[in-house]
Amino acid sequence: MTYEVVDTQLSPAGRLDVLSKAEVHRLLDNRNGGLYELFRNCALAVLNSGSSTDNGKELLERYPSFEIDIIERERGIKLDIKGAPASAFVDGIMIKGIHEHLFSVLRDILFIHDEILLNPTFDLESSAGITDSVFHILRNANVLKPHIDPKLVVCWGGHSISREEYDYTKKVGYELGLRDMDICTGCGPGAMKGPMKGATIGHSKQRIDGGRYLGISEPGIIAAEAPNPIVNDLVIMPDIEKRLEAFVRAGHGIVIFPGGAGTTEEILYILGILLHPDNAELPFPLIFTGPLSSEDYFRQVDHFIGITLGPDAQKLYEIIIDDPARVARTMQDGVVEVRAFRKNKGDAYYYNWTLKIDHAFQQPFAPTHENMRNLSLHKNQERHLLAANLRRAFSGVVAGNVKESGIRAIEKYGHFEISGDPEIMEPMDALLAAFVLQGRMKLPGTAYTPCYRIIK
Amino acid sequence: MTYEVVDTQLSPAGRLDVLSKAEVHRLLDNRNGGLYELFRNCALAVLNSGSSTDNGKELLERYPSFEIDIIERERGIKLDIKGAPASAFVDGIMIKGIHEHLFSVLRDILFIHDEILLNPTFDLESSAGITDSVFHILRNANVLKPHIDPKLVVCWGGHSISREEYDYTKKVGYELGLRDMDICTGCGPGAMKGPMKGATIGHSKQRIDGGRYLGISEPGIIAAEAPNPIVNDLVIMPDIEKRLEAFVRAGHGIVIFPGGAGTTEEILYILGILLHPDNAELPFPLIFTGPLSSEDYFRQVDHFIGITLGPDAQKLYEIIIDDPARVARTMQDGVVEVRAFRKNKGDAYYYNWTLKIDHAFQQPFAPTHENMRNLSLHKNQERHLLAANLRRAFSGVVAGNVKESGIRAIEKYGHFEISGDPEIMEPMDALLAAFVLQGRMKLPGTAYTPCYRIIK
Amino acid sequence: MTYEVVDTQLSPAGRLDVLSKAEVHRLLDNRNGGLYELFRNCALAVLNSGSSTDNGKELLERYPSFEIDIIERERGIKLDIKGAPASAFVDGIMIKGIHEHLFSVLRDILFIHDEILLNPTFDLESSAGITDSVFHILRNANVLKPHIDPKLVVCWGGHSISREEYDYTKKVGYELGLRDMDICTGCGPGAMKGPMKGATIGHSKQRIDGGRYLGISEPGIIAAEAPNPIVNDLVIMPDIEKRLEAFVRAGHGIVIFPGGAGTTEEILYILGILLHPDNAELPFPLIFTGPLSSEDYFRQVDHFIGITLGPDAQKLYEIIIDDPARVARTMQDGVVEVRAFRKNKGDAYYYNWTLKIDHAFQQPFAPTHENMRNLSLHKNQERHLLAANLRRAFSGVVAGNVKESGIRAIEKYGHFEISGDPEIMEPMDALLAAFVLQGRMKLPGTAYTPCYRIIK
Amino acid sequence: MTYEVVDTQLSPAGRLDVLSKAEVHRLLDNRNGGLYELFRNCALAVLNSGSSTDNGKELLERYPSFEIDIIERERGIKLDIKGAPASAFVDGIMIKGIHEHLFSVLRDILFIHDEILLNPTFDLESSAGITDSVFHILRNANVLKPHIDPKLVVCWGGHSISREEYDYTKKVGYELGLRDMDICTGCGPGAMKGPMKGATIGHSKQRIDGGRYLGISEPGIIAAEAPNPIVNDLVIMPDIEKRLEAFVRAGHGIVIFPGGAGTTEEILYILGILLHPDNAELPFPLIFTGPLSSEDYFRQVDHFIGITLGPDAQKLYEIIIDDPARVARTMQDGVVEVRAFRKNKGDAYYYNWTLKIDHAFQQPFAPTHENMRNLSLHKNQERHLLAANLRRAFSGVVAGNVKESGIRAIEKYGHFEISGDPEIMEPMDALLAAFVLQGRMKLPGTAYTPCYRIIK
Repeated sequence: MTYEVVDTQLSPAGRLDVLSKAEVHRLLDNRNGGLYELFRNCALAVLNSGSSTDNGKELLERYPSFEIDIIERERGIKLDIKGAPASAFVDGIMIKGIHEHLFSVLRDILFIHDEILLNPTFDLESSAGITDSVFHILRNANVLKPHIDPKLVVCWGGHSISREEYDYTKKVGYELGLRDMDICTGCGPGAMKGPMKGATIGHSKQRIDGGRYLGISEPGIIAAEAPNPIVNDLVIMPDIEKRLEAFVRAGHGIVIFPGGAGTTEEILYILGILLHPDNAELPFPLIFTGPLSSEDYFRQVDHFIGITLGPDAQKLYEIIIDDPARVARTMQDGVVEVRAFRKNKGDAYYYNWTLKIDHAFQQPFAPTHENMRNLSLHKNQERHLLAANLRRAFSGVVAGNVKESGIRAIEKYGHFEISGDPEIMEPMDALLAAFVLQGRMKLPGTAYTPCYRIIK
Repeated sequence: MTYEVVDTQLSPAGRLDVLSKAEVHRLLDNRNGGLYELFRNCALAVLNSGSSTDNGKELLERYPSFEIDIIERERGIKLDIKGAPASAFVDGIMIKGIHEHLFSVLRDILFIHDEILLNPTFDLESSAGITDSVFHILRNANVLKPHIDPKLVVCWGGHSISREEYDYTKKVGYELGLRDMDICTGCGPGAMKGPMKGATIGHSKQRIDGGRYLGISEPGIIAAEAPNPIVNDLVIMPDIEKRLEAFVRAGHGIVIFPGGAGTTEEILYILGILLHPDNAELPFPLIFTGPLSSEDYFRQVDHFIGITLGPDAQKLYEIIIDDPARVARTMQDGVVEVRAFRKNKGDAYYYNWTLKIDHAFQQPFAPTHENMRNLSLHKNQERHLLAANLRRAFSGVVAGNVKESGIRAIEKYGHFEISGDPEIMEPMDALLAAFVLQGRMKLPGTAYTPCYRIIK
Repeated sequence: MTYEVVDTQLSPAGRLDVLSKAEVHRLLDNRNGGLYELFRNCALAVLNSGSSTDNGKELLERYPSFEIDIIERERGIKLDIKGAPASAFVDGIMIKGIHEHLFSVLRDILFIHDEILLNPTFDLESSAGITDSVFHILRNANVLKPHIDPKLVVCWGGHSISREEYDYTKKVGYELGLRDMDICTGCGPGAMKGPMKGATIGHSKQRIDGGRYLGISEPGIIAAEAPNPIVNDLVIMPDIEKRLEAFVRAGHGIVIFPGGAGTTEEILYILGILLHPDNAELPFPLIFTGPLSSEDYFRQVDHFIGITLGPDAQKLYEIIIDDPARVARTMQDGVVEVRAFRKNKGDAYYYNWTLKIDHAFQQPFAPTHENMRNLSLHKNQERHLLAANLRRAFSGVVAGNVKESGIRAIEKYGHFEISGDPEIMEPMDALLAAFVLQGRMKLPGTAYTPCYRIIK
Repeated sequence: MTYEVVDTQLSPAGRLDVLSKAEVHRLLDNRNGGLYELFRNCALAVLNSGSSTDNGKELLERYPSFEIDIIERERGIKLDIKGAPASAFVDGIMIKGIHEHLFSVLRDILFIHDEILLNPTFDLESSAGITDSVFHILRNANVLKPHIDPKLVVCWGGHSISREEYDYTKKVGYELGLRDMDICTGCGPGAMKGPMKGATIGHSKQRIDGGRYLGISEPGIIAAEAPNPIVNDLVIMPDIEKRLEAFVRAGHGIVIFPGGAGTTEEILYILGILLHPDNAELPFPLIFTGPLSSEDYFRQVDHFIGITLGPDAQKLYEIIIDDPARVARTMQDGVVEVRAFRKNKGDAYYYNWTLKIDHAFQQPFAPTHENMRNLSLHKNQERHLLAANLRRAFSGVVAGNVKESGIRAIEKYGHFEISGDPEIMEPMDALLAAFVLQGRMKLPGTAYTPCYRIIK
């Protein structure tokens, strides 16, 4: 099968309009460095929006001739693009939302990573330094808005969900939008797209201009979860851990829809953080929800949390089945509490500085075969640290499923091996098996071959 | 079954903010006049948006306690509403879009009809006077925008269509929205809602603020076709003929989706007008379109047009099957021609003064049993006058199907009887029978009892 | 001396963009009617803005070749202008503010006067009918803004004032602007221009966009008091009485600067109204102010009021000498009271419906020699009626000084003769004599020949 | 004499709304460093706007109790201000424009100087590095706007000029504003304020929203030339040389009004740059203008330029006497050429990268007694280098006249001594003597004591 392609040249949208000569030169230099490959792959992912694949490797193979170059003009820069997916264009002109996303990618991958990740001012070995770098990347993307009451709802959930579940996520987004709440997701299809579409309609009915649809991605996942052009603020964080930190510091509450390994990773992340003793008083609305047909799914997840992290963890969320309006109302009430708490503390509404995130949740985890094998999955540790390790285990499964590097590693070395306490391993095995059965690991139409083996 | 209701008081949105004392008094007087009943029924229809019924009579019976009063304040007016459908509210507050629609209804029914229909300046017996009154109602609704290039696409089609057809109308709306075109429909569900939802997403992806979703209704039909709150400009014309004139003078092209008797009425209306010799040179993009499954439907309609109005009529439209992007591109090309023609003629972009509409298409047709019986349905007349009479026949069928007055008349006097040339009556009978079979006469879930009898 | 002129064609700005064919025809008809002369003269006055003359007759003689025609286009209208004062143009293009004013004149003189003054709905013989017509003219000019707190300060005062007085009016305007108040004047030079210029700078320093500079004129005076282009809302009322009513119903307080006969007319008007028993409770901030050098002037005026209307009238205003900030603070406090009163009464903020204006202040007064001779200027009548008659006397003097018709009448028939009680006539004579001495009757550089004679 | 003072606390306006914790800490640290003194003095200068003094030292002595502290809040920062000049407030609330200026000062002095002047990325020893730092400071102040045609006119001239000259600068600003040009000056009174006031009125008459009034200052001069609150973009450059570079790179043409030593410094700066062979082809509109009474002044200046820099330098400007409209038209024509040139070159409209500025004009010159004595003022050097040295001489005189450090040095060590070629020294002496005679060295009301001695 061949895919139709288009060539074009693009002028900057947004901040990159005004670059100094030195900045242009640095961009051109980066083009030849290792970062360029990353930029090219993310750009391709953005351009591929709307087509369905959750296999980053496959995507690259579909468009072998794709090239993206930065051209220097006295007056600034242009992007010179060859072999781009035709679906990003309408009658030869790139869709404006995708055009903007491309320059968001450029801003975050080439330009900012340079200024932040290579800038000695930011100590990326320390917890405070990581939090600071997340702040700077978000601020540079113009995503932190002062003078606005808390109303950014993070929606997590699977990219591969049933039609019924997808329609449900739209309804929840619609009810949130009717109540003037904004949506933040990880970009991509399924539970990451539905709430934004629903909220667009809700905002439109309430005549709300300037509704925000914030997408936060990272280079490893973007190919599998390309941002829908509805996303009107796109940020590419450097890695999955900073992406998760961005979600919980910028958002004011979280709704979790059904999903697979990635969603479980996210659940373990937020529970692990909220279990930290320093966060005991901090209000953080957290809702698990889905249509009637997903009730069993949530019972299963709840059960797994009960067994591994205990009843205190179970108290941190509310499960609401088949009631989108109640989800929205509960979130609205929760967000009011968040506002009161921050006002009282004098904390910013746009960034949750008070939230304690243990260093264990911030350090990048590389899901190599060795790291996966050595995960410490036993109950003989603090709950929030166990959550951190479980999070890593699921993160590895996601990588093996959909990330280019993970897929290549599995092709080369075979299954990841995961071992630990039987009382943790058995429910984990059951949970993953259920995900496979329910088709939550990969987009429909592709048979799932597990990338892991549970060693009990 | 009982329906949940809410009471509330509302301040004006838009123009009605600034009324003189005399105007307030006139409104209050009207409340006691016959116009009030009309206002109440339209207001209820608007409030019922989103619930599905296409039976105006049934709607009124659902909310027997519904009342809407105008209260005088020194400072202006308020609406005092009792027993309103709860679905119009979110947590006790009326959805902003519906709030706006209520005041559009007030503006058009009580206020303007007074100033226009009862104003001796407008000679509603003459063709020019009717055209002028349509202009004034639209201008007063702030719907005629100067300094904007032609881009308003009228979408016609059934309120009761299949899921596949509905999804197709969304896709066409999406492709039109991606190309910066605006949507105008008759409000209501089905083919009248789909294109607006699609265009909302298309506009959003192209970062187009201020996309227009214009709904044009009339008191007789609004209960069956309540405006979706996405409609951001709502106008209530006094009758079906002025509504149709508003469509063709304000719009720049028409897309016709599958539908039933109402859609056929619309098709006959526009063909009858374009067949008028004075309009021979006038560009008017007209596209019939639907998904693959509707191909037979369009062949049937095309066949009926060929038999009754002849091949010249068939040349006026293009049939495009299952290709939303081509529909949008064809419309875009057509609209460019419209622009060139008007620029050349010095005609306004916002109102098609040049279009000749024969008086026969402007005179209100009351679908009484007698008028239906006396329709002149034979080939021995000019094509555009035959089209006018056929239009009336289908208009009567629509009234008998969904309009409150029509339903009551059928209940009282039995079937409408329609007679004429066999070579017209037979294909007409066949067409209507097909609509019944295909479920195009009423919303799904309700069995259709024909309101007419073809006398061959 | 010859004056440079320019020819041009103009497209509408604002409302007149969207006219029906019938409306265009009515405009063209009016062009040939008596109203056209009025329109032409007002248009010339607007175009002459910035040049200094306060002699309407002289202005017309300066530009004998001036013509303004309305051209019909399918798409609307254009103005075709020949022989216009070159000062209205910058490098051949008309200044935008003047361009807008021209179409305000068209809107008010030709279009609205037709719809209101000739419309049987408005009973211009009754007090309520006049008030209603004033409301409609203002609303049509889009000058009545809902949802805005009271802050429109009317500034009255002479067109011919000293440099020191002029600078003082700027300072008061500046202090009002700093406090987010808007300015309304009668257009023209002197005390009508200074406060607007000052407020422009005050608004700019406070970063207030959308400051309003409302000018209310009438055909008889506009040639002598052409609107400065800073005026961003211009309304032409049909006569001086409706103009005065527009000031007191649309404004929220009044500042009076030094002036001549016209200013005295305005003072008598507002005092006469506030003296009406029905207005006893109504808060209405009224301040007389000027620089130190004008202290004597205000003592004189105060004295005249004391003698003629009595101490109750003197209680209605506050005299503030040489303290612009205190003027602004006092006005701000007064306006807060106005807001509270209207809120309490449920009256509109944008139009003072509650204010009682006696019919005597609404009926147009034609300053013929006969009417002037017959004025009833004695103390044996209610105070507010005496005020009404005194107002008429001063109105006549203004007409004789600067209005085209008045000047022609004086040229033909000699002085107006004014007679009455000696105890009124003597202070009146003294006051007028002082105005002549102080150069307040005409612009500097022109010798003043009195147009009246006091018969004691 | 005592001066009224006010205490207050202020929230950020603009960018400083969203600071990271680390940034807040750095600000607080700076407060204790040497930079704080600079910040405090500039803040006081901004708050003193409107009062007239051109003596930085005197200003500090007037408000001995003035303190400005940065307070840390979880949510960001506040400024805590004690003993501020009461003239910056209206009824206890700081004028919005001054409020914004204060945070511009904070942004530029504490925050950015840190990020730029102390940032090793910027090589401030090299010409390119200086140009880059100027760019970054301007960009950070949001002053470089893409997508806008060239129209920023720099106005230079004296802070101490006659009323007639001042009124003339207003008229030129007015004519520029009428033609949609924006104004950039060095802030302060006189020729720096007049054009902005005039342009405000011109923009208002043309209904131009968003007119720009850009003020560029530097810490040494700001006390003597406090920004008028009309300035709606204020930037504080680190030193006089970067300030001058900002003017010529951000502006599109320059108008020079009469002035004293500072204006002559500016004239020598721009002539020295334009004389550089690399700039031979570059269009740069440069106009000397004033009222009739200033004709002699310009002849004198022109003569001085002729003698020192030669006829080539004289060809670079046009002298226009008493014709504001011609100044504006000439500038408009010049700016059209600038646009064509940059378009052709592909250079940015918002920053003149192409202009060559010799390092001699970029290196900060400290006007110590020694440096002044050692200036190389002879003809035996390239013209543009002679211009650079002459520029330094006049820069020293300005410092001795109005800058705090300069005044203190003169108090301590006596006159600056300036020596050089007699054929340069004599006309220079004559020129300076004329400035003294004409009262151009200091604000009126203060006797001028020369701070220099020409050694011939």
